[in-house]
Amino acid sequence: MLTFIGLGLFDEYDISLKGLEAVREADMVYAEFYTSCLMGTNLEKMEKLYGKKIILLSRKDVEQHPDWLNEAKDRNLCFLTGGDTMVSTTHVDLRLRAQKLGIETRLVHGASIASAVSGLTGLQNYRFGKSASIPHPYESRRGTKVISETPYDIIKQNLELGLHTLVFLDIDKEKGYMTVNTALELLLEVEEKRKEGVMHGAAAVGIARAGSENPVVKADYAENLKDFDFGKPLHILVIPGKLHFLEAEALVKLAGGPIGFMKEVD
Amino acid sequence: MLTFIGLGLFDEYDISLKGLEAVREADMVYAEFYTSCLMGTNLEKMEKLYGKKIILLSRKDVEQHPDWLNEAKDRNLCFLTGGDTMVSTTHVDLRLRAQKLGIETRLVHGASIASAVSGLTGLQNYRFGKSASIPHPYESRRGTKVISETPYDIIKQNLELGLHTLVFLDIDKEKGYMTVNTALELLLEVEEKRKEGVMHGAAAVGIARAGSENPVVKADYAENLKDFDFGKPLHILVIPGKLHFLEAEALVKLAGGPIGFMKEVD
Repeated sequence: MLTFIGLGLFDEYDISLKGLEAVREADMVYAEFYTSCLMGTNLEKMEKLYGKKIILLSRKDVEQHPDWLNEAKDRNLCFLTGGDTMVSTTHVDLRLRAQKLGIETRLVHGASIASAVSGLTGLQNYRFGKSASIPHPYESRRGTKVISETPYDIIKQNLELGLHTLVFLDIDKEKGYMTVNTALELLLEVEEKRKEGVMHGAAAVGIARAGSENPVVKADYAENLKDFDFGKPLHILVIPGKLHFLEAEALVKLAGGPIGFMKEVD
Repeated sequence: MLTFIGLGLFDEYDISLKGLEAVREADMVYAEFYTSCLMGTNLEKMEKLYGKKIILLSRKDVEQHPDWLNEAKDRNLCFLTGGDTMVSTTHVDLRLRAQKLGIETRLVHGASIASAVSGLTGLQNYRFGKSASIPHPYESRRGTKVISETPYDIIKQNLELGLHTLVFLDIDKEKGYMTVNTALELLLEVEEKRKEGVMHGAAAVGIARAGSENPVVKADYAENLKDFDFGKPLHILVIPGKLHFLEAEALVKLAGGPIGFMKEVD
């Protein structure tokens, strides 16, 4: 039996009672934290609270040589990840591999940033379109900086439909956690080049440390928000589409947005 | 202080350790279960596990006369809901009222059906468009049955963009919990009328009892899936857009979908 457990958003106390029970009953506990991670804790604290040794898996262990899966044929294994479980393609692939080996699988869900962002900002979940993600720029072979324009295109498409865009920010082992500030700078650089008016004067909401005691949620126009200090990671960004009255009120009163947001409502 | 706590998906064990701690430290605990509810438990079981008396609020208590909010001025109140917290407009409104009364608020997140569906089906969360919801049909003043065409329109728009649609099904106190079967019948009735080919031959995935020990996830063409027995509520529906190879494989191997799904991949 292999139980996939989503640990939730921030620290070791975000696991559900159901998840904790599964971990405590497991023969072996594995985890991967490269697709998502909990900033408010570490392996040691988790092991202490959960009362189990946790074996940390690398990307290679998960994607190329998941030999450890075989142990689930006759033992109870748990596989821990940040956020909700099975959100990454990698996890779906693991589940398919497990099935091929005749291993029964079970999911224990955890809180996800996708719904948390909706709660933290007051933006309604059914008014979000396709989500985007912003990768760190890279250097082309000619040495020029290459910025992906895909997030700009997704935001543009959603705005045309009046929908909000959740923008995931790159978590890179070497280049680090992308900030809301960098993300907005990159989007504004694309705006500068394309001049399609997607980001110019656009509302934006940055969220830092969702799930912690003191999350920061700050709304402003993109050009201003890029200079706001959100503090430590993880950060995530929303580019709202057309706002309902209550959404605008929430952004102004709960996220310190400019009063002008109230004038542009549906 | 008012702490909004999302209880997660199915039963009293889906609360996070953080949520449980907040409930146990609270002076008063309120809950509402009309916007969302936990099918695997009841008030008595929750009270027993959480070690607190829970006061159940009606829609009127929450939306029209939330006088109980005043108690949060000098005491610690918790407000419990199913799924993640603050997903309903009603909760955002409560938070704004609390702020007006000078009450500090805090959120403790729980697992949400929106991300759980992605994990259970293997459909990638960033490939979902705007979500839809299907209300029970109602009788017009002339006595004819009126079926909302909005969900059909949203599915159509998402399919044109190659995106999946999460379809929430009505939870009505009098008319009951809508099943995947009824939802598909209603969508196919709209298809019959509009004949725009949105639902004809469309893939569909039904999910029942997400978060329980034995969730049912079944994929098929809409016309066939409408006759599948999903068992007890809650049900939810996904109309997939263009499938990636791994998504098609997940629907076939993990959700018993027809092998034809594999031929229509991106």
